[in-house]
Amino acid sequence: MPKTQRQIKLGAFLMPTGHHIAAWRHPGAQADAGSNFRHYVELARKAEAAKFDAIFLADSVGVRSSQLDSLSRTARSDNFEPLTLLSALAAVTERIGLIATVSTSYNEPYHVARKFASLDQISGGRSGWNLVTSSGVGEATNFNREEHFEHAERYRRAAEFVEVVTGLWNSWEDDAFVRDQASGTYFDEDKLHVLHHKGDHFQVRGPLNVSRSPQGWPVVVQAGASDDGRALAARTAEVIFVAHQTFEEAKTFYADIKGRLPQYGRHADDVKIMPGIFPVVGRTQAEAEDKFAQLQDLIDPVVGVSLLANVIGGFDLSKYPVDGPLPELPETNGPKSRQRLLLDLARRDGLTIRQLYLRIAGARGHQQVVGTPETIADQLQQWFDEGGADGFNIMSPWLPGGLDDFITLVLPELRRRGLVRTEYEGTTLREHLGLKRPVHPAAAARAFSPPVRAEPVEAAHP
Amino acid sequence: MPKTQRQIKLGAFLMPTGHHIAAWRHPGAQADAGSNFRHYVELARKAEAAKFDAIFLADSVGVRSSQLDSLSRTARSDNFEPLTLLSALAAVTERIGLIATVSTSYNEPYHVARKFASLDQISGGRSGWNLVTSSGVGEATNFNREEHFEHAERYRRAAEFVEVVTGLWNSWEDDAFVRDQASGTYFDEDKLHVLHHKGDHFQVRGPLNVSRSPQGWPVVVQAGASDDGRALAARTAEVIFVAHQTFEEAKTFYADIKGRLPQYGRHADDVKIMPGIFPVVGRTQAEAEDKFAQLQDLIDPVVGVSLLANVIGGFDLSKYPVDGPLPELPETNGPKSRQRLLLDLARRDGLTIRQLYLRIAGARGHQQVVGTPETIADQLQQWFDEGGADGFNIMSPWLPGGLDDFITLVLPELRRRGLVRTEYEGTTLREHLGLKRPVHPAAAARAFSPPVRAEPVEAAHP
Repeated sequence: MPKTQRQIKLGAFLMPTGHHIAAWRHPGAQADAGSNFRHYVELARKAEAAKFDAIFLADSVGVRSSQLDSLSRTARSDNFEPLTLLSALAAVTERIGLIATVSTSYNEPYHVARKFASLDQISGGRSGWNLVTSSGVGEATNFNREEHFEHAERYRRAAEFVEVVTGLWNSWEDDAFVRDQASGTYFDEDKLHVLHHKGDHFQVRGPLNVSRSPQGWPVVVQAGASDDGRALAARTAEVIFVAHQTFEEAKTFYADIKGRLPQYGRHADDVKIMPGIFPVVGRTQAEAEDKFAQLQDLIDPVVGVSLLANVIGGFDLSKYPVDGPLPELPETNGPKSRQRLLLDLARRDGLTIRQLYLRIAGARGHQQVVGTPETIADQLQQWFDEGGADGFNIMSPWLPGGLDDFITLVLPELRRRGLVRTEYEGTTLREHLGLKRPVHPAAAARAFSPPVRAEPVEAAHP
Repeated sequence: MPKTQRQIKLGAFLMPTGHHIAAWRHPGAQADAGSNFRHYVELARKAEAAKFDAIFLADSVGVRSSQLDSLSRTARSDNFEPLTLLSALAAVTERIGLIATVSTSYNEPYHVARKFASLDQISGGRSGWNLVTSSGVGEATNFNREEHFEHAERYRRAAEFVEVVTGLWNSWEDDAFVRDQASGTYFDEDKLHVLHHKGDHFQVRGPLNVSRSPQGWPVVVQAGASDDGRALAARTAEVIFVAHQTFEEAKTFYADIKGRLPQYGRHADDVKIMPGIFPVVGRTQAEAEDKFAQLQDLIDPVVGVSLLANVIGGFDLSKYPVDGPLPELPETNGPKSRQRLLLDLARRDGLTIRQLYLRIAGARGHQQVVGTPETIADQLQQWFDEGGADGFNIMSPWLPGGLDDFITLVLPELRRRGLVRTEYEGTTLREHLGLKRPVHPAAAARAFSPPVRAEPVEAAHP
């Protein structure tokens, strides 16, 4: 097979009714998407037919919004839990990757390792875990706390969490389960590895009760862009979802992450950086702008102000004039990178509260592109060719219509340029993304010194 | 529609390769069942075609067995995680109920409420939660503990856990999500109910971020038969899975549970009692006995002794002669009911260690029936007609062959007697089981006093 040109990786980032805050009110949206499984089946199958690398689901272990009057006017209170949803979608798709967000803040690593390992078996090697930390009070209060964990503590916990999860994924070598009916040997004792993790946050013995993932490990994805987040990503992530407003930001981030990899013995190709893109596509620029204006007009000001308040860290903005400037804000315990990004944007362009919420209503800090297939393809190509991205997470403004637009209008243009695949090359998410399959450390050790027996294995329970 | 006769409820209790400890070695078993999703798809579809009420999955958040030499000779170390598996099966079935075991000991109620609510949406109202407490050290050590929780403490936690879960399932009334695109009202604020739970074990604010279950609530199932377990079941369970050795035990348990219901304002029909049955079916008695002997002959003594040790609470039996009597055992912290049951059995029949492990190798304390379709149907009918059971959880000795035998040989006989359905009457698990749909308390209150507004609702996050 001839070596093909490097191609853009594509994720379909699915929010129930779409990414725009008013998406659910759009006539082309599925307003009941949050409890409509058939809607998700259609989206997954469309994305698969279009040869996306993966579908991607965000998550929150609680209801996000801050004020009841705003909450009751947005489609953010009801949705499927991502792992149950992706498991169901695994059964009705064949090739597309399935990436779910699961927080490290209010979970136990054994459960998370196990559920993704199980999804990986169910899907034949198509799962990915988007590791996040929880920063919403609406999550903390569902888990025996008054306040969420402080930023650095969240990342310390996350770092240990991913260490335990990947350690559990190494419980069994690929060929541990021999299942020899005649001799009665179900697994090879030498190929079981009990973790015995004891750390500051977790004490987890193992082994995992799921056999090794078809992908070695499910793909590890991350989204944190703070310094703590970048350090963790450079050490552990294989895909990074990130929000950028400008090409310069994207390039700086890309170079920073790729530059950090060698210190962990990793190569530039070991991590795929995929910024979010919120595309509003028209056959002409005017049509694209009309489509966007139609969405913006659907935003209730109560919702807009509340959305902005939420994104900048829960600071109450309702007492400030909506057509006045954004006030100076105290440092919060919220997601640092997104907060800073918004404040920079407001200052840079001198925006009022209303103007700012209109700016973020769709893409929430991600790059928003309103244009024709050609101009959108130009931008994706520039970011991809000039060191800003390995691919993109496509954040459809509304669903299913916005995804249909991207698939039927933008993808043909990208395909014409040879920038995206026309057929899947492999069957697993790792193969789609061009990521190495993790070799089990004991198998690797044996390969270098074949006559040496693997380290002694203890009984599973003494 | 004419009122039909009371019929036997049927669960298909699926262990990967089957319930017999040596099942995986059987030539008709799927040895790699623990990582073979297609195997489960076939089983679920077969059970659905045969009009079972539900499939049922057990669970352990760890590897169960105690000794590596025994563990490596059994198919108990690798399997799918139940909620991911049932979610996937929901997408490829239409009617059959989907019951997963999830422990209350090492989970958080918000996660559990949410995942079952999500599965209920995905499946169109077919989910059930089998609530258990964890008693294995192999589970505790995966969750930051050296030892599992003491018995009474486990049940106190479980009781509060189910209170929180069902409270979260009442977060939204059935018609809370109006999704009126024109006015911009997504949900009716009066129909959101924030839980604000503060108890000894949990502090959970809510609301749940999944809309109300198509069944009102997923069906609540329980399996504990100790006094603590019975008390909890009588108050909260809608289905009880239980292990009995004799009809007398079954009758006593049945009468005890049904007798406890009125003190909680519940009726006999509100709880379905479904003992486990391990059927080995032959066209003749001799054929059935041959089938059973074939399985028993496949048991490795190392596995048999270890299995017995595990079932009686982790007590080490390897130093006692396998053909000698079971020694006197100290009280343990394990599952009391099962331990007592085994000790009673050993004393009653004067069994050696080997004889005892041969007795439990298949059914692990449940009723074992080796017979023809007629004799098996006779026994099920007696238990059902004479106050021992509302249905049965069918524990196939090996899979898929053992389930095929039950479906093709026993079911026609039960159908001939009018004891089982020939078609599903409804679409939800509740409808299959004849269980009431829980009415939301606020809706119930409104129904009694229509002009009164529901109690004031607070902002989701103040």
